[in-house]
Amino acid sequence: MIMKNPKIPEATIMRLSVYSRFLTKQDKKGVISISSGQIAEGTGGSSAQVRKDFAYFGEFGTRGVGYNVKDLNHNIMRILGLNKRWKVVIIGAGNLGSALVQYKGFRNRAFDVVGVFDNDPLKLGLYLGGLRILAPDMLEQTIKEQEAEIAIIAVPANHAQGVADILIQSKIKAILNFAPTVINVPFHIELRNVDLTVNLEVLTYNIKTSESNN
Amino acid sequence: MIMKNPKIPEATIMRLSVYSRFLTKQDKKGVISISSGQIAEGTGGSSAQVRKDFAYFGEFGTRGVGYNVKDLNHNIMRILGLNKRWKVVIIGAGNLGSALVQYKGFRNRAFDVVGVFDNDPLKLGLYLGGLRILAPDMLEQTIKEQEAEIAIIAVPANHAQGVADILIQSKIKAILNFAPTVINVPFHIELRNVDLTVNLEVLTYNIKTSESNN
Repeated sequence: MIMKNPKIPEATIMRLSVYSRFLTKQDKKGVISISSGQIAEGTGGSSAQVRKDFAYFGEFGTRGVGYNVKDLNHNIMRILGLNKRWKVVIIGAGNLGSALVQYKGFRNRAFDVVGVFDNDPLKLGLYLGGLRILAPDMLEQTIKEQEAEIAIIAVPANHAQGVADILIQSKIKAILNFAPTVINVPFHIELRNVDLTVNLEVLTYNIKTSESNN
Repeated sequence: MIMKNPKIPEATIMRLSVYSRFLTKQDKKGVISISSGQIAEGTGGSSAQVRKDFAYFGEFGTRGVGYNVKDLNHNIMRILGLNKRWKVVIIGAGNLGSALVQYKGFRNRAFDVVGVFDNDPLKLGLYLGGLRILAPDMLEQTIKEQEAEIAIIAVPANHAQGVADILIQSKIKAILNFAPTVINVPFHIELRNVDLTVNLEVLTYNIKTSESNN
């Protein structure tokens, strides 16, 4: 499989992830072969979109024959970097951090949480999802020893940059930031923000816009 | 303020939300006037981007003078539909749902959680964030009585469509779906998915792509 175009839209990558999860489910059900139409139906898209997304990566199957579920999923997983497992540390053991540590969806794909950190002395040493909660001063060492490559920040906004600064000193490759604030990291670290309130505000904007158009 | 262009990119709406949160903080600090450069610096963007985002909505200030923080924030909040408070119900009182019910970021903006629901009999009647956990068969009635307009789905993937089907029967206007699956709703309901694993997989794709380019 040849990478035809290095400039793949992020929306395509997100859909590949959704396709792959759907294909994993079909594979478990024993489905051998699948069409772009069936993938579209199972993932809420159109078959034209599915084919267009796949076309960025060359041919995945033979036209008219349908895709082999296992092969297709294997290829997509490889594109997404999921032909290996990834070690993740989570910083912040509050409500959101605790939920993320225990989130089964991560392990079901390719993500193993190997460390959880909090600066609350009352939480230190307690167990969460089978892991002892450690102090932030153990963060750099844990990342090194565990060879963790991804960090999830789930601390209050005013602590997020401080956590990011520790992560920058480590060999972390990517950060998923849930703190509702902007953090600055150097270009070699991949950063993605999941802002819960921003997502709600896109909805209220859309409600308002659709109501004023009616 | 005149809506110049109804086709506003979603990325602009998301940035408006971030600008607004930053402006709220500046306003609380007593800052009166602010430049596009200062907004850019505080939100991790460029001043050209800030001005371009604002340009979709006409003029917010006088060139060279800077923006009045209160007025600008008031205008952005109005655009986002945040000149009123929104009532939210959360379905799912597991780890993630519990974290969302207690998430202070929602209330700090314009969102009040008025109902929380779970189908686990052991959870019914327990209190979470000051609310009694109710059974799903109370969902429709609660939405009606409380006049809730937004629902957050935080149930396992295999229950998500069932919850959505109840919501479709109600007068809910928008759904924020955290369940890692595709749900189908009619066009008049605004739907947004926050998929935690998909976000991690965009990161692994980006790590892999940047490593193979080096």
